[in-house]
Amino acid sequence: MEPPYYAVIFSSQRTDGDHGYAAMADRMVELARQQPGFLGVESARGADGFGITVSYWATEADIAAWKQQTEHLMAQTLGRERWYAKYSLRVARVERAYGHSLQTNPDDTEPQSHRA
Amino acid sequence: MEPPYYAVIFSSQRTDGDHGYAAMADRMVELARQQPGFLGVESARGADGFGITVSYWATEADIAAWKQQTEHLMAQTLGRERWYAKYSLRVARVERAYGHSLQTNPDDTEPQSHRA
Repeated sequence: MEPPYYAVIFSSQRTDGDHGYAAMADRMVELARQQPGFLGVESARGADGFGITVSYWATEADIAAWKQQTEHLMAQTLGRERWYAKYSLRVARVERAYGHSLQTNPDDTEPQSHRA
Repeated sequence: MEPPYYAVIFSSQRTDGDHGYAAMADRMVELARQQPGFLGVESARGADGFGITVSYWATEADIAAWKQQTEHLMAQTLGRERWYAKYSLRVARVERAYGHSLQTNPDDTEPQSHRA
């Protein structure tokens, strides 16, 4: 996938304990893959509980649709109430990309899909 | 800082061992803070060695200047040769931001500056 495309940059500080978080995170990646315009996801979280997840989408409309997905809405609510001490979310238009290219085959994105 | 501004999304898979990486990472954050247009940085790396660093900049010209900074150029070369098994770098224009706002005071960004 060549730019331009869109990135959702989600950075967050986890609260202590799992409280269903890991299962939700896996489920959200599974659901996102089924959404129109989903291009891939990358995620990393350190031992200090600070993490960054970047998901990539073909259009802003695809991001809006994912934001409104029913099960995702529930996860957003639980995230604010339970899982995150703080977070920020940014929507950005990718203008240029270097290095290994973004994988568009869901199987190929697997190595980049690290649980947040 | 309100959008629009720019994000450099750097995702990478570390090789095994430190090989001077941690000291370089700290030094690059220290140098970036001194660059014109630097707004902040967020970074996370998991135990599997996959990490994401997002730095934020006022303009694309600021990013171009940082890319050409002498000591940073040396780090880029060593990164390709020694520290990263693979990486990707994307330049994106942040259109919207939610949650806690991006801190512009260097002292305030400290809690978000996690070593990659």
